[in-house]
Amino acid sequence: MRFEHIDTTIQTLGEAKIPSPLLQPANGECGAYFVDDDERILLHVNEKQVAQLKADGIPAPAFESAGPRRKIYFDPSKLRCALVTCGGLCPGLNDIIRSVVLELHHRYGVRHICGIRHGLQGFIPKYGHSTMDLSPETVTNILDSGGSILGSSRGDQDIEEVVDSLERMHIGILFMIGGDGTLAAASKIADAIHSRGLKISVIGIPKTIDNDVFLVARSFGFDTAVDIATQAISGAHNEAEAYPNGIGLIKLMGRESGFLAATAALARQDVNFVLIPEVPFDLDGPNGFLENLEKRLTHRGHAVVVVAEGAGQEFFEGRKKMHDASGNVKLYDIGLLIKSKIVAHFKERGISVSLKYIDPSYIIRSLPANSNDHVFCSFLGRDAVHAGMSGKTKLVVSHWNNHFVHVPMDQVITQRKKVDPDGKLWATVLEATGQSSLKNPAPKKA
Amino acid sequence: MRFEHIDTTIQTLGEAKIPSPLLQPANGECGAYFVDDDERILLHVNEKQVAQLKADGIPAPAFESAGPRRKIYFDPSKLRCALVTCGGLCPGLNDIIRSVVLELHHRYGVRHICGIRHGLQGFIPKYGHSTMDLSPETVTNILDSGGSILGSSRGDQDIEEVVDSLERMHIGILFMIGGDGTLAAASKIADAIHSRGLKISVIGIPKTIDNDVFLVARSFGFDTAVDIATQAISGAHNEAEAYPNGIGLIKLMGRESGFLAATAALARQDVNFVLIPEVPFDLDGPNGFLENLEKRLTHRGHAVVVVAEGAGQEFFEGRKKMHDASGNVKLYDIGLLIKSKIVAHFKERGISVSLKYIDPSYIIRSLPANSNDHVFCSFLGRDAVHAGMSGKTKLVVSHWNNHFVHVPMDQVITQRKKVDPDGKLWATVLEATGQSSLKNPAPKKA
Amino acid sequence: MRFEHIDTTIQTLGEAKIPSPLLQPANGECGAYFVDDDERILLHVNEKQVAQLKADGIPAPAFESAGPRRKIYFDPSKLRCALVTCGGLCPGLNDIIRSVVLELHHRYGVRHICGIRHGLQGFIPKYGHSTMDLSPETVTNILDSGGSILGSSRGDQDIEEVVDSLERMHIGILFMIGGDGTLAAASKIADAIHSRGLKISVIGIPKTIDNDVFLVARSFGFDTAVDIATQAISGAHNEAEAYPNGIGLIKLMGRESGFLAATAALARQDVNFVLIPEVPFDLDGPNGFLENLEKRLTHRGHAVVVVAEGAGQEFFEGRKKMHDASGNVKLYDIGLLIKSKIVAHFKERGISVSLKYIDPSYIIRSLPANSNDHVFCSFLGRDAVHAGMSGKTKLVVSHWNNHFVHVPMDQVITQRKKVDPDGKLWATVLEATGQSSLKNPAPKKA
Amino acid sequence: MRFEHIDTTIQTLGEAKIPSPLLQPANGECGAYFVDDDERILLHVNEKQVAQLKADGIPAPAFESAGPRRKIYFDPSKLRCALVTCGGLCPGLNDIIRSVVLELHHRYGVRHICGIRHGLQGFIPKYGHSTMDLSPETVTNILDSGGSILGSSRGDQDIEEVVDSLERMHIGILFMIGGDGTLAAASKIADAIHSRGLKISVIGIPKTIDNDVFLVARSFGFDTAVDIATQAISGAHNEAEAYPNGIGLIKLMGRESGFLAATAALARQDVNFVLIPEVPFDLDGPNGFLENLEKRLTHRGHAVVVVAEGAGQEFFEGRKKMHDASGNVKLYDIGLLIKSKIVAHFKERGISVSLKYIDPSYIIRSLPANSNDHVFCSFLGRDAVHAGMSGKTKLVVSHWNNHFVHVPMDQVITQRKKVDPDGKLWATVLEATGQSSLKNPAPKKA
Repeated sequence: MRFEHIDTTIQTLGEAKIPSPLLQPANGECGAYFVDDDERILLHVNEKQVAQLKADGIPAPAFESAGPRRKIYFDPSKLRCALVTCGGLCPGLNDIIRSVVLELHHRYGVRHICGIRHGLQGFIPKYGHSTMDLSPETVTNILDSGGSILGSSRGDQDIEEVVDSLERMHIGILFMIGGDGTLAAASKIADAIHSRGLKISVIGIPKTIDNDVFLVARSFGFDTAVDIATQAISGAHNEAEAYPNGIGLIKLMGRESGFLAATAALARQDVNFVLIPEVPFDLDGPNGFLENLEKRLTHRGHAVVVVAEGAGQEFFEGRKKMHDASGNVKLYDIGLLIKSKIVAHFKERGISVSLKYIDPSYIIRSLPANSNDHVFCSFLGRDAVHAGMSGKTKLVVSHWNNHFVHVPMDQVITQRKKVDPDGKLWATVLEATGQSSLKNPAPKKA
Repeated sequence: MRFEHIDTTIQTLGEAKIPSPLLQPANGECGAYFVDDDERILLHVNEKQVAQLKADGIPAPAFESAGPRRKIYFDPSKLRCALVTCGGLCPGLNDIIRSVVLELHHRYGVRHICGIRHGLQGFIPKYGHSTMDLSPETVTNILDSGGSILGSSRGDQDIEEVVDSLERMHIGILFMIGGDGTLAAASKIADAIHSRGLKISVIGIPKTIDNDVFLVARSFGFDTAVDIATQAISGAHNEAEAYPNGIGLIKLMGRESGFLAATAALARQDVNFVLIPEVPFDLDGPNGFLENLEKRLTHRGHAVVVVAEGAGQEFFEGRKKMHDASGNVKLYDIGLLIKSKIVAHFKERGISVSLKYIDPSYIIRSLPANSNDHVFCSFLGRDAVHAGMSGKTKLVVSHWNNHFVHVPMDQVITQRKKVDPDGKLWATVLEATGQSSLKNPAPKKA
Repeated sequence: MRFEHIDTTIQTLGEAKIPSPLLQPANGECGAYFVDDDERILLHVNEKQVAQLKADGIPAPAFESAGPRRKIYFDPSKLRCALVTCGGLCPGLNDIIRSVVLELHHRYGVRHICGIRHGLQGFIPKYGHSTMDLSPETVTNILDSGGSILGSSRGDQDIEEVVDSLERMHIGILFMIGGDGTLAAASKIADAIHSRGLKISVIGIPKTIDNDVFLVARSFGFDTAVDIATQAISGAHNEAEAYPNGIGLIKLMGRESGFLAATAALARQDVNFVLIPEVPFDLDGPNGFLENLEKRLTHRGHAVVVVAEGAGQEFFEGRKKMHDASGNVKLYDIGLLIKSKIVAHFKERGISVSLKYIDPSYIIRSLPANSNDHVFCSFLGRDAVHAGMSGKTKLVVSHWNNHFVHVPMDQVITQRKKVDPDGKLWATVLEATGQSSLKNPAPKKA
Repeated sequence: MRFEHIDTTIQTLGEAKIPSPLLQPANGECGAYFVDDDERILLHVNEKQVAQLKADGIPAPAFESAGPRRKIYFDPSKLRCALVTCGGLCPGLNDIIRSVVLELHHRYGVRHICGIRHGLQGFIPKYGHSTMDLSPETVTNILDSGGSILGSSRGDQDIEEVVDSLERMHIGILFMIGGDGTLAAASKIADAIHSRGLKISVIGIPKTIDNDVFLVARSFGFDTAVDIATQAISGAHNEAEAYPNGIGLIKLMGRESGFLAATAALARQDVNFVLIPEVPFDLDGPNGFLENLEKRLTHRGHAVVVVAEGAGQEFFEGRKKMHDASGNVKLYDIGLLIKSKIVAHFKERGISVSLKYIDPSYIIRSLPANSNDHVFCSFLGRDAVHAGMSGKTKLVVSHWNNHFVHVPMDQVITQRKKVDPDGKLWATVLEATGQSSLKNPAPKKA
């Protein structure tokens, strides 16, 4: 992975001149920890890549470190902030909300924090969603609940209407928690703000249960998702083992990236086939999935299959492309396709199998975060606040090489982070499952 | 509920003459606790019912208490036992296996315990399943695994072939863990044994995740099922609340009895509609489900619906009846029907909704038992052993009025235990959900 | 167990004349389920005991069934209710609070529900605790939190001051959630109310993590406590197995009754010694605990010991009796005593052991209820409301023979429920542990 | 943190000449993923530090990447391996064992894997511990159990005797899983092996529930420990909130490093004081802990305190230093000291408090790993096998900058990893708790 063409410059609304309240905290002592803008974290840690960059005369790219600054841009006593959560649910949304609110209130003394209901819809008058005042009291007990106390929605809204709304509410910092589409919208909102000459900071916190946002090594909720997915796989394994020719088939999230399927398959190592979007496979043919599945049943009597929702979309080619409210291509259901292909295959071969199909997606995404994600979200929320208070804008808070950093919003939406078919994760999945390429040799040309 | 016509007599293979090894336990002291055959537990606790029985001149029925007897029928040093688990998975199967094996081995000194693989198939030579020797070492670490270490299968097998197999293996006690169909087969096996003049005890342990076995107040695994179902409902509730007009629809087990759906709905009290087989409902019409669902959305913006798999089967009338391998009527999928009806209804009304459908069935049934079920299974397994060792046969170990009792096998398969539509459980569900009858007034006759 | 001298008559404040709002629920249909006062549940289910009662000419005692009545005593529109939680924490307190509040509000239409803070202290002006208005909004999200949103306290308060406070607040129904001491106080409060000629119903909901309230077959939170205790035992077992001569020693709650220790020991059956208050044991001597522990280590290399906090208090004889704020005798710490005795014993014998001592008490009592307790509390809270609304008083809501019933308050405080040393539970513990009597033979007299 | 003096060279037993079996896996296709020895991961990612190193003319240090090599040193068909787990229990031990065994067996075809029982004792004949043959069957179901199936022990053993034992058993690779002390022993064992001219690879897998091994960014089990610690803190918080002047005091592991206490405190952000070894504090005086605790009670009515076991050891100065079997200094119990100091302080002030003390240490360390640790251990075990098979020795498998790397054994035992009192973690703890320095001003000099 090489990132040399990445512009890591962070935009600001203007000079930060106000001494941070963190310099004189409530308990009367000077806080010791501040981060300067020239604290930067290198993108590359691979010695060879660094050497190559140097040989090419390209300066090693680095991200600005996240964290509290000594000088801030906004006057906390006058500042109004808004939070919005968009797109699909993800464990940790309430953690982020809580962390942002507690930090704004207790550390910076901000008293006007407005929760926008039901995603971007909440900005648009015609939907009639009321807003929600956020304070420590509102958020104190929300960690044990999944979902988002602000609700969410899918789909784009008119950017200018959103900015109109921000103006009407006199918002200074807008925290947007959402995935690819949301961050793209956030970027446009920041541009529209700039065009109007407004001083509103837009801070993104990447939310993706697929863990697929570019330049974000880890996204919140993913660890929790692996937890619950593992439980489902364990159940599928028990079902498969119990019955003669038992097959457990689990569909997991992963529209374009198979991180969840690949990672969960490693937790207990009792998965035999993992199918992900990044690695094409054949269903039929001598080395196709079905033939290999049959071999496994013959030799071991049971099998567990994990398929990411975005895998094998090429099998639906020719069908009409449809889009959901957010403009995402609607995926065809690979889980049900594979289920029916398995049934048909073994019926044809006259082999009786016991197939159990499990789709735990909604259970996974709607549960509360685990402790590890609690801690992670606690950092993310604080660093988002620090970034906004310092007058920075159009950035996302990311985790990279074990550090929290600022990444320009436009950079993270250029592409998806994907499982590298030649990398360690996928190689380990192949080792753990023992699965072959599941690809037939290319037909010889005449 | 009145049970006056119930014959509670337990059959025996012959007189128990051998002093129980429990009289002289390994630690050298005389065990104090034994149960006599005339220890009996009354079926009725309702004062009025008892008075009515008396007025009718009918003796109050009572079940034999389960527990160790002073005299046993089988000589432990020569005894061979067999265990088999049949039908669908259920939390606690491994607990029962472990409890039976530890009690036979450690307390009675039985050294030949044979695990039959994959349900009744394991008795039939043509399937070629090997058996599994069971000992304390084999079972010591199986509590944390769901499923059954013996495996299971669906479907009837030839009764005479099963008894042939028991004869070949010189089995003295057969422990059969399974549901309605398994217990019916067990009863026939016991009859065939009797016809051949064999001395083989057949002890049933009722397994039903639907908690629907007649004369069994509580069945193992049900409490665990409520636990996991509650988790799924909680997720559905979070999904429903998050989105404008959000609907969470959860399908739970319950072929003929809605205990799981009704009980799980009470755990958190955030369910708005519960649909079970025992209580008919209309989908359409002014007081039908769909109209009421729309009202709920109008007033509260979201709704959670729990439907038992056997509910509303009358909506499929006219369709062909199909049967599974076990001879059970295959249910039509009420969950998917209701899902499509909801979608169609709101599409027609021009109301945008966000519907999430969750079917956690396989996750529920394949997970390990919780502590409460661990304890319960520990008792069930021991009492099954005590019953078998004493030469009793054709009985199931049941829990009734908080006591473990022996119930004749033929009695429990006469009918299903059902949720009483006029009883406390359903009344409480109606209170907790606030749902109306969901029935339209009967059309007036001309 | 024989209960013939029990007066099961429930006191009332006066005739219930007002038609219940449940007759005409919000959804416009007549509720079908009501309970009459002559619905009664027999105490005895043992056939022999019933026969003996009959032979003695004693009528079989029976408890009034809990549940909604057709006529109520209080006018919901004018009624003010108060809730208080007292004594030690217990899983399910928030469930009870929520269930009572939702039932009062949604089903009966009561709008004034007052939460008393920090137990009985909350009634006494000098402590200065404010009260807390309780409504569906307040209680909707409290199920996932352990503890009590009302707080608690230990210790008696002046009964007359409490009644003064009830008068000042114009309370009609007081719900008191607490243990033995609290129910004794509740009884006195009810008497003082009666003496003053007031019309205030006092309804008790028994709370005891020891599961030791007389005439209450199951108390809320106990099932959850078994869950967490099992986790601790599992940890202790892992520690014990890992090290040469490893000993895991777990202290569990159980001041006078060893139900928690005995039940948790059955969940996984890897406990080797259970020590409870009801069954005396010797520490020293040839058949004492220490000698038996040494034997176990010699033969198996590790051991797990569970001790209830009230076990072996006779070893502290001669020491001063102390009392806590609630007037309970302060127990000496049997866990630490046994720990030190073990250390001394093996030091003397020159045997190196690895002892791990675990006391999970505060973790157990402060966690949220599990699903099973959620459901149970949901019933308890509703039935408490039904009882109060009907004008009954000085009763506790109990669970007996699988039915919810009313038990006169004075009856439950006459004695503790105890583990029967000759009964099934303890016999099963002896079977599961294989432990001997741990008593030396009585010395022969000269 | 600067690491410029670190020698990252990895020792080898000799040239690896044998083509890896992974080049021709069982499924007949060539594995694609191999790591070359010159793949290296830079230690530093902070741009300034890198620049400084460059300015100083010091080459940037880098660790060898872990992973499979194309050429291996040992002939799998003849190789014998040994595994040993030492020191205190830690979640994930069984995961590591399983991962190593599965990788050796399934991927490399090694058939002789010997489990050493009870730590280093297992090598020493006088203890008489038998060994345990390890195979896929042995390890397949151990993930759900805490502890270690091999057991453990504390304390040094004679290095030469250990090597004698390795010789007798013809071991080629020794996998040692343990903490600081174990890795120091491993280093000496490797040296003794070298002195004798033997060809035995010694591979360390760092185990530390304190997460305090130098040059190891993350150690297995730590994430699980945070999970369970969070549960305990949550309970303590509920206890504290419930009672007037309630104080919850939790002691967590952390002999020299407070990572667990600091991290767990961030999960829910309801901790008010965190005390760790790295940050000195005063108990008494105007800005000491006790005075601040009193202030907190005055203003908020309750407080939660987390103390790491190694904090405040200076308060025991003057007492005799004692050592445990492993030679570690025995820590004085700071938890009990603070408990008694709190009691004394408030008694003196005449303030009634309700203090609950919770020590969950043994529960934490003896439970099974969570999913995140399952995955992590799965990688660690495999990479340990790859390292050993390639003939490398005297290294530990570490995780650094999100990559698995080889670190020379001698480097990791030079010092402890510590919480940086001026770094982001501790600063965030201070923000989350709002605690002040808890240090009194230094007395002015005359």
